[in-house]
Amino acid sequence: MPTITEERIRVRYGETDQMGHAYYANYFYWFEQARGAWCRERGFSYRELEELGFFLPVVEAHAEYKGEVHYDDWIVVRVWVSEMRRASMRFDYEVVNESTGKTTTTGHTWHVLMGTSRRAVTMPPEIRDMISRDPADHQTKP
Amino acid sequence: MPTITEERIRVRYGETDQMGHAYYANYFYWFEQARGAWCRERGFSYRELEELGFFLPVVEAHAEYKGEVHYDDWIVVRVWVSEMRRASMRFDYEVVNESTGKTTTTGHTWHVLMGTSRRAVTMPPEIRDMISRDPADHQTKP
Amino acid sequence: MPTITEERIRVRYGETDQMGHAYYANYFYWFEQARGAWCRERGFSYRELEELGFFLPVVEAHAEYKGEVHYDDWIVVRVWVSEMRRASMRFDYEVVNESTGKTTTTGHTWHVLMGTSRRAVTMPPEIRDMISRDPADHQTKP
Amino acid sequence: MPTITEERIRVRYGETDQMGHAYYANYFYWFEQARGAWCRERGFSYRELEELGFFLPVVEAHAEYKGEVHYDDWIVVRVWVSEMRRASMRFDYEVVNESTGKTTTTGHTWHVLMGTSRRAVTMPPEIRDMISRDPADHQTKP
Repeated sequence: MPTITEERIRVRYGETDQMGHAYYANYFYWFEQARGAWCRERGFSYRELEELGFFLPVVEAHAEYKGEVHYDDWIVVRVWVSEMRRASMRFDYEVVNESTGKTTTTGHTWHVLMGTSRRAVTMPPEIRDMISRDPADHQTKP
Repeated sequence: MPTITEERIRVRYGETDQMGHAYYANYFYWFEQARGAWCRERGFSYRELEELGFFLPVVEAHAEYKGEVHYDDWIVVRVWVSEMRRASMRFDYEVVNESTGKTTTTGHTWHVLMGTSRRAVTMPPEIRDMISRDPADHQTKP
Repeated sequence: MPTITEERIRVRYGETDQMGHAYYANYFYWFEQARGAWCRERGFSYRELEELGFFLPVVEAHAEYKGEVHYDDWIVVRVWVSEMRRASMRFDYEVVNESTGKTTTTGHTWHVLMGTSRRAVTMPPEIRDMISRDPADHQTKP
Repeated sequence: MPTITEERIRVRYGETDQMGHAYYANYFYWFEQARGAWCRERGFSYRELEELGFFLPVVEAHAEYKGEVHYDDWIVVRVWVSEMRRASMRFDYEVVNESTGKTTTTGHTWHVLMGTSRRAVTMPPEIRDMISRDPADHQTKP
């Protein structure tokens, strides 16, 4: 069972549009912010991954909008890894609007691991280990 | 056969990220800009649609990234309607990087027609007519 | 002496540009988020202000960049009201990069109070009272 | 007399906010797009400048909002160099809303020339020459 990370985000005024709720592209910023939190809960930051010479660019992005979120709403973005392959991985997302308790959006992103050559590379064991870690693990290790 | 609209867009500096190419969420802004051009080629603007009390919010968004676009690149976003239903419609997109001639991204969005009540409504004939129009039509009509 | 509100924000990947640090326009999103926090510390939300029929659009925005902030940095945006006039007010900002402890950016915004007619209006006493409140006040009132 | 470059931009839906007009931070994206056009009218692109190892980061940004621009409006951003110093330069901007003919926003940005060390450097003659060029010049030179 994949472990889930939750990231709370407050909707900015600049993220709304004239329809009065958050513009659809902003969810992909929020997904990214949740991925960052997911990494940190496993004891590393995506920034460190890049400093090691690896990148995880998005190769597929998908969102389904079932409800709205408004300015100043707190949302919770739930994120987990739903699939791991040799050189790629998939994150799934659920956005819950705290003011209603409803899941307003679901989505996923696919990422390919790239080295400094900007070519897909098989995940080295140490990267796979970082990514497969349980949130609790990195805290209990000495 | 659906008619295709093409919108040329130059990539802004602020649309890049530290990986050195356009951040993935920006494609959804470009898709939206291309939808606006699609409407205008058919003789109306999305703004007019809203002034008539109709909205076409996005209920699904999808993109697949096969290549990169960089700052100052000209891209062409090709957009067409790939499916029409009673109260919804789907746009498909291809993003071509002019500097390489390659399709770097494909995607689609699903939209539901909503009235002022913000509920899905069956497309009224006049809206269906606007949307189904051929680009040439509105120019030849008196 | 004006009371200061502090809002902690983590820099998103999508807020960086190819120069490797946060794109300059993003600071104005962060200023806005800090203004929202400023309101809430005084017991109301900017959303409520709009629901009462008032708007505080920006009429002047200014920022001076003395340093950089990077992806995943925590920043603290310090915000306070530096001037109040009959129908307008000014917020001042300092952005501190927590990883260096340095003030990287300062700025200000001027806002005009508008009513539903979208014309500038003299601040009614109840609005002036909300805005002039001390952060502690609203918590100690029954 | 500085020569002026004009860049036409159509306002995107995603650039509006729930107040119904363009969010204030977006003007800084438009200023940037106009600076890019300014460079190209002088025969180089800002991208080339970076490829030569130079950067022109923004050290000050300022805008005054006197009117509104709405979704689907065409705006014209007029940009010119108003001051040149040893290692820095200032661009001034006027945003005209084509649908009303009115100047809705004015502003400026200050930039410092930096080398690959990310330190301010005195403008080398070849950079100063590129920047000081008249729009017509680069077309008439062999």
